[in-house]
Amino acid sequence: MKILALDSSGLVASVALMQDDVLVGEYTTNYKKTHSQTLLPMLDELGRMVELDLHTVDVIAVAAGPGSFTGLRIGAATAKGLGLALKAPIAPVPTVDALAWNFYGSDRLVCPLMDARRSQVYTGIYTFRREEEAYRQVTLQPQCALLVEQLVEKLNELGREVIFLGDGVPVYREALRRQLEVPFSFAPACCSRQRAALVAGLGAVMAREGKLVEADRFAPEYLRMSQAERERMGADEAEKEAMRAGIAPSCRGE
Amino acid sequence: MKILALDSSGLVASVALMQDDVLVGEYTTNYKKTHSQTLLPMLDELGRMVELDLHTVDVIAVAAGPGSFTGLRIGAATAKGLGLALKAPIAPVPTVDALAWNFYGSDRLVCPLMDARRSQVYTGIYTFRREEEAYRQVTLQPQCALLVEQLVEKLNELGREVIFLGDGVPVYREALRRQLEVPFSFAPACCSRQRAALVAGLGAVMAREGKLVEADRFAPEYLRMSQAERERMGADEAEKEAMRAGIAPSCRGE
Repeated sequence: MKILALDSSGLVASVALMQDDVLVGEYTTNYKKTHSQTLLPMLDELGRMVELDLHTVDVIAVAAGPGSFTGLRIGAATAKGLGLALKAPIAPVPTVDALAWNFYGSDRLVCPLMDARRSQVYTGIYTFRREEEAYRQVTLQPQCALLVEQLVEKLNELGREVIFLGDGVPVYREALRRQLEVPFSFAPACCSRQRAALVAGLGAVMAREGKLVEADRFAPEYLRMSQAERERMGADEAEKEAMRAGIAPSCRGE
Repeated sequence: MKILALDSSGLVASVALMQDDVLVGEYTTNYKKTHSQTLLPMLDELGRMVELDLHTVDVIAVAAGPGSFTGLRIGAATAKGLGLALKAPIAPVPTVDALAWNFYGSDRLVCPLMDARRSQVYTGIYTFRREEEAYRQVTLQPQCALLVEQLVEKLNELGREVIFLGDGVPVYREALRRQLEVPFSFAPACCSRQRAALVAGLGAVMAREGKLVEADRFAPEYLRMSQAERERMGADEAEKEAMRAGIAPSCRGE
């Protein structure tokens, strides 16, 4: 199975090509350019380097949210365009689940933090359990938007060692240090951000589990409303929405 | 600190740029082209995409061996050339140590396998121990060339769960299944091969520990003699060398 994977959910732009057990290529940047300047040129470059015939791609895996609204739209538009043109289904990979794959196989708690502004993070809590000769990702908290204080409360309740990664770490490092009552660590640069290879890896699992969607039915999962939507709703409603997103025990997207 | 990293020790060609806590870019391919066709064009492409001024690079990190002789020479020549031109020191990163960083933070045993032909693998046995807010790589078996049977014996003695990765896995999967008496798993495609970002990560550790070398003094660590050298030595001597490399309890390169 040949999987083409994209991630433009955050500041990182990343493309990867995986064929069965081999990562044929991966190209990732985290630089002050827009995804419209990077994602397709990178895909084009990688495709030329590994002589990719796009028509041989079986599945398009894409980081399907949460994340930056513009980033998710660029990723979704690219994935849908490719999927429709190539008649390939889409693996809509939850962004935070894929981020947690940076620590595939860990028996510690893995907690990605994406800065979601308004004191919130897009986050989730995961670990990995061995099954036969591989590991299965176990979700203790599905991806959602939380106040950092709420996340810390959950982690302190779980009482287990935790590894943090993601672009929310530099923003909330001090708050975490102050509030955590469990052992913790922060990921180094090589395994702390989005990688399309991780999206491809989880996309392969979704393909095996029959969780692919047709390209014309795929839409990203924003988890929250955009700023424009919130402003249109007016202050009162926006306040209620923020409360729901922040405080409801079961987040949207579960 | 800005680290430019290269890995051409195996079938993979990979380049990465890391600045402090951020992986600015990484480009990796595992495709049927020679490293002379891929490594420098990929570095050039990545440099243009992230607008890299090479003169701002502080350290060149390179996978310094073991690995394919030609691959190591291309990596070493590139690193030395860059290091001399830019007056930047080199972090000579042990190839197998960097491969093990695919499972940074794991408390299982991490065992990279690089197919070294002649029934041997370049391998090592590692785990990770938390120190403050990060992990330190702990080496239980420094990188060396071993017969797979010898490696299995060591792993069975250690008696702990082990994760295998590397291009030796498809070659020795069945032998491992037959002989291992401990729980084991195989890495998925996203974290089973060389990545220059891992070389950069370990290079940063070496820089902090003062383990950099001047470019003109750097040479790769082959661990074994090349086929041409073995043939020149003649059959008898070659046999002795194979015995030393294969059976001596402490491998070269320790």
